[in-house]
Amino acid sequence: MRALLLTARGSQGAALSDVPRPVPAQGQVLVRMLAASVNRVDLYMRDNGAGITHSLPQIMGIDGVGEVAEAPEGSRFTPGDRVILYPYEFCGKCRYCLEGDQPLCTSAKIFGEHRDGTIADYIAVPETALLPISDSVDVEAAATIGVAYLTAWRMVFGKVPLAPGATVLVQGAGGGVSYAAAQLARVAGARVILTTTGAAKLVHFRDQGFEVIDYADGPSSKSVLALTGGEGVDLVVDNVGAATWDQSLRSLRRGGAIVTCGATTGSAPSADLQRMFIRQLSVHGSTMGSVGEFRQLIATFESGAIRPPIDSVYPLERAAEALDRLSAPDRLGKVVIQIA
Amino acid sequence: MRALLLTARGSQGAALSDVPRPVPAQGQVLVRMLAASVNRVDLYMRDNGAGITHSLPQIMGIDGVGEVAEAPEGSRFTPGDRVILYPYEFCGKCRYCLEGDQPLCTSAKIFGEHRDGTIADYIAVPETALLPISDSVDVEAAATIGVAYLTAWRMVFGKVPLAPGATVLVQGAGGGVSYAAAQLARVAGARVILTTTGAAKLVHFRDQGFEVIDYADGPSSKSVLALTGGEGVDLVVDNVGAATWDQSLRSLRRGGAIVTCGATTGSAPSADLQRMFIRQLSVHGSTMGSVGEFRQLIATFESGAIRPPIDSVYPLERAAEALDRLSAPDRLGKVVIQIA
Amino acid sequence: MRALLLTARGSQGAALSDVPRPVPAQGQVLVRMLAASVNRVDLYMRDNGAGITHSLPQIMGIDGVGEVAEAPEGSRFTPGDRVILYPYEFCGKCRYCLEGDQPLCTSAKIFGEHRDGTIADYIAVPETALLPISDSVDVEAAATIGVAYLTAWRMVFGKVPLAPGATVLVQGAGGGVSYAAAQLARVAGARVILTTTGAAKLVHFRDQGFEVIDYADGPSSKSVLALTGGEGVDLVVDNVGAATWDQSLRSLRRGGAIVTCGATTGSAPSADLQRMFIRQLSVHGSTMGSVGEFRQLIATFESGAIRPPIDSVYPLERAAEALDRLSAPDRLGKVVIQIA
Amino acid sequence: MRALLLTARGSQGAALSDVPRPVPAQGQVLVRMLAASVNRVDLYMRDNGAGITHSLPQIMGIDGVGEVAEAPEGSRFTPGDRVILYPYEFCGKCRYCLEGDQPLCTSAKIFGEHRDGTIADYIAVPETALLPISDSVDVEAAATIGVAYLTAWRMVFGKVPLAPGATVLVQGAGGGVSYAAAQLARVAGARVILTTTGAAKLVHFRDQGFEVIDYADGPSSKSVLALTGGEGVDLVVDNVGAATWDQSLRSLRRGGAIVTCGATTGSAPSADLQRMFIRQLSVHGSTMGSVGEFRQLIATFESGAIRPPIDSVYPLERAAEALDRLSAPDRLGKVVIQIA
Ligand SMILES: [Zn+2]
Ligand SMILES: [Zn+2]
Ligand SMILES: [Zn+2]
Ligand SMILES: [Zn+2]
Repeated sequence: MRALLLTARGSQGAALSDVPRPVPAQGQVLVRMLAASVNRVDLYMRDNGAGITHSLPQIMGIDGVGEVAEAPEGSRFTPGDRVILYPYEFCGKCRYCLEGDQPLCTSAKIFGEHRDGTIADYIAVPETALLPISDSVDVEAAATIGVAYLTAWRMVFGKVPLAPGATVLVQGAGGGVSYAAAQLARVAGARVILTTTGAAKLVHFRDQGFEVIDYADGPSSKSVLALTGGEGVDLVVDNVGAATWDQSLRSLRRGGAIVTCGATTGSAPSADLQRMFIRQLSVHGSTMGSVGEFRQLIATFESGAIRPPIDSVYPLERAAEALDRLSAPDRLGKVVIQIA
Repeated sequence: MRALLLTARGSQGAALSDVPRPVPAQGQVLVRMLAASVNRVDLYMRDNGAGITHSLPQIMGIDGVGEVAEAPEGSRFTPGDRVILYPYEFCGKCRYCLEGDQPLCTSAKIFGEHRDGTIADYIAVPETALLPISDSVDVEAAATIGVAYLTAWRMVFGKVPLAPGATVLVQGAGGGVSYAAAQLARVAGARVILTTTGAAKLVHFRDQGFEVIDYADGPSSKSVLALTGGEGVDLVVDNVGAATWDQSLRSLRRGGAIVTCGATTGSAPSADLQRMFIRQLSVHGSTMGSVGEFRQLIATFESGAIRPPIDSVYPLERAAEALDRLSAPDRLGKVVIQIA
Repeated sequence: MRALLLTARGSQGAALSDVPRPVPAQGQVLVRMLAASVNRVDLYMRDNGAGITHSLPQIMGIDGVGEVAEAPEGSRFTPGDRVILYPYEFCGKCRYCLEGDQPLCTSAKIFGEHRDGTIADYIAVPETALLPISDSVDVEAAATIGVAYLTAWRMVFGKVPLAPGATVLVQGAGGGVSYAAAQLARVAGARVILTTTGAAKLVHFRDQGFEVIDYADGPSSKSVLALTGGEGVDLVVDNVGAATWDQSLRSLRRGGAIVTCGATTGSAPSADLQRMFIRQLSVHGSTMGSVGEFRQLIATFESGAIRPPIDSVYPLERAAEALDRLSAPDRLGKVVIQIA
Repeated sequence: MRALLLTARGSQGAALSDVPRPVPAQGQVLVRMLAASVNRVDLYMRDNGAGITHSLPQIMGIDGVGEVAEAPEGSRFTPGDRVILYPYEFCGKCRYCLEGDQPLCTSAKIFGEHRDGTIADYIAVPETALLPISDSVDVEAAATIGVAYLTAWRMVFGKVPLAPGATVLVQGAGGGVSYAAAQLARVAGARVILTTTGAAKLVHFRDQGFEVIDYADGPSSKSVLALTGGEGVDLVVDNVGAATWDQSLRSLRRGGAIVTCGATTGSAPSADLQRMFIRQLSVHGSTMGSVGEFRQLIATFESGAIRPPIDSVYPLERAAEALDRLSAPDRLGKVVIQIA
């Protein structure tokens, strides 16, 4: 079968290859992939991989949508069922799995990172890594939600309660997870303010009705306070890190919270404990989402409430180009790989 | 000044009267009323009043919108400020007030019930019973949210967590609070199924995109289970009481919850404890909402996310007729009184 | 091996028998049992079994402690490990298992009810039904916590938050789960009031420092209100049902909660919706506890904070007598079966 | 009347003085003080005061216990009532007060900091700053709970749920708030590990049955991980700041939380975002506690569950010495001022 295989580090390391179709182990389901999407972490594994322990070669791809090709006896699934992949194989036996917090599994295997991934004609996975998804949804859009939207879901809904009327600030909304967070917060009735820069992005987000701050114009917290009558926001989604951290802290109302799942500009800003305790702020690190959260996200997606922005769709043959597209400065939205 | 004065029980007991303008006590704010709305409880007080301890005569009206006419020194308010009334005078000193749960105040005075109300040219109230509201909102729509939407808010958001993708069943959605609950659940991204009957209401709710069950067609729980793949819903809003209670319990998924703020068809259905513990269901009584919840509701209303259905608008001169309109079988939506 | 085998309904239906040692299926662990305890539900299955679908013969026993005899490759367990049994085989794949709420598993098999149980020399179970427990704990005491204390744990900690200083009322504290609930609430710093009757029990609980109401003296809610300055309690644990329900509702403070996991005196008291919504009460059905809750309970038990009351200990040879002891009127505490 | 008056900055700035007895403003209660305690923040105001805006002279003292001398008409209090002071005058009108979160009040006046304090024969305060306390409690012990224990209460119970069996690490347990946090966590059934140093403190805490780490022995996180089987703790209480922050982060289990209300060794450690999001940690700033939390604390104190450690008791005449005692290296426990 065809697969996007990573054989070496570097921009030439990933290429479409012909590999044997996987044979499902006991209890596994064989899925024929229909579409996948690429995520920034794929680029990181291709080009750098520091701190990542997997051995090469490996099939890339974390998320995607497919159709059941073979299911073991006693499975909830039947050949032909449309399914979406939860991005991990989790153990199901550790403390965190048994508490329903699969992102904390002590022996999780992320697809495309710790084991073969989704950008291939077939993948064999444990039944618990599959959720049903309606035949009527757009397959390419669905292929984008398993990482970006699931991660955003936990950030927006999983750490502090969010009711309609709350105000959420999303830093650097052009990133995939941040964009998803802005959309999800709005689906839940929140007021969403976001920061970005560059004419195209500013226009794009304003056209969608968001309140947009151009961070090139100066300290964003001043603008945030101006927009909120001096009060500050309830929640900041900050995946930017050191470059925005201080502004994020200053944008919060008393008792407000920051959630972070990444720190692309640096991981070591000052914790500013004094501000945190005087104003009773909280900071929440977040990674991916649980199977339960994924189920809720899928229901929300099936309802039509969120439409993931799609930058471009590549056929599987051009999957390596799709990876390159991720770093194009004018990219806005997810890059999808059409497989079948 | 003019006021809708209740002087005796019965359908002739309430009439427009000329009464002295209230003189604000120390710390009170004088508000010039712009609009009010009538609620089912007004009708109850006019016609029955059993179990209600207030003395007559009394100015009617629980909710409304006005403009500050006089404010005491040191107040947060200035003459001319647009304000909305929280439906109570609460004590601010009891355990529940100090915990921010004003609906449990041990000595609350509801406007129009325990003290003079809002259907008048002026009202004098403690500053804590007023919240600012934007000049740009529609005054008549705003006058409808203080009771129906605030009560619905706590039912939908205040008892169990509600994230997008959750499924909510609203029993008897034609009632004011139930209608508001259906709208609010949708604003938060939930899937809303509702029960009602009568051609006009069925059409009305279907036109708005709700999933509608005609309860005249048979046990609604069967339809609910069919619509949810046999799973049942996460939350039921049931203000109907004995007539629907068993169906509400049977419509819940394992671990689901019912919220109730009223029981017009009877208060004593079986608690069905066995079903409750086997399926780990919960039942939550709810009344009104807190000031904090009202602040969130106002922000949501100001955002344009909810549009209260308005059946009719009466000038203050015809306020008594407005009360009568409440019991018209073809009424759908709130009855508003325009004051200034 | 020896086992307490249920072959027919009725008081003579259960007897010590010689049966083949179970052969662990793929992934299962073989456990050599050290001790088990009997629960009221065992008696129900022996004598009645209405509504229970299991086929006979079956080995009885829901909870217990043992030692790993054989473990499959890759298991977290090694022969010789001391383990305690979680009272179910759960599927690990349904929505509720994946959310960490195993008591709601749609295909759970309770030991001794849906599959062979713990009162035997050996049992073969999936690895996920075992938790490690310290070698230093008393085996007989440990054998009593898997059902009674786990069920009580969720009732006391799993439904509404409980901080020190809260007040908890336990109805009919002589029952195993209720007794456990009283102990657990006290471990968490709560003030515990309980109702019981009969000289021996009244003395027993007073000796332990509980505030005790003799319900033979009249309506217990009057006593509860007297003890709480007219306020009422935060939480009622009521497994009695119809006979106490109204008193339980009347014993709650505004905003208080009842938790129930059983209704031995009847399942259909009035839901009293009016009281529930005016005072914002809540009712929570509860069954067993999750694996995560069991882990916390085990840590608490290992700390020495709870000492389960033990009525009597029978050797496995006399297991049938142990069952009979359950219905002795003078029993107070758990009945344990020593196996090895 | 007598009062500890701060007239100038520096160690000589506070002295017992004769000042006029306060005259209660409208709605205020006059309290005859019985005992007060001193807190580190008193020392800070006497010696430094940077960033504190109050004008001098001012009566010192944040917390204390007294007896109602005069109460206004309609008050819940009667002369002779024993009362404890909540450490603030809060406005009762701002968003946070109305939500029951008085520590976030936008115009709070802390006793002894923004207005006259408790170390005096009399104080006049709003009724909402007083809570009843039983006549039977030890007055000197009660005088120590208003700041240290209330602050600790919110840290331990107010930010993340704490059930029995949880594991809590308290950094630098010799400090007043940290010591209180260790006691409160234990009252709630948690396992408490603490760090301190110096022979006297090590012995003192071990004698009380705590698990104690001497931080002079090396990185405390290594010891914490060793004590928890490599897992880490659920909650860290860290009021030390920069000196311990990294160790605190490394002592947490996946999904664990740090709570901080102070940073005596520095406020700007690295936020270590990468560790936070990979392991899903959270950090919570905390300050004081709400009136609702104080009510719960008082109930817990009245139950006898907590015994504040008292270092020494000074008569009011020697109040200035009591302040000096705060900085004695061998002090362990609270310093109390006996007033009447
Ligand atoms: Zn796992
Ligand atoms: Zn009150
Ligand atoms: Zn299951
Ligand atoms: Zn305030």
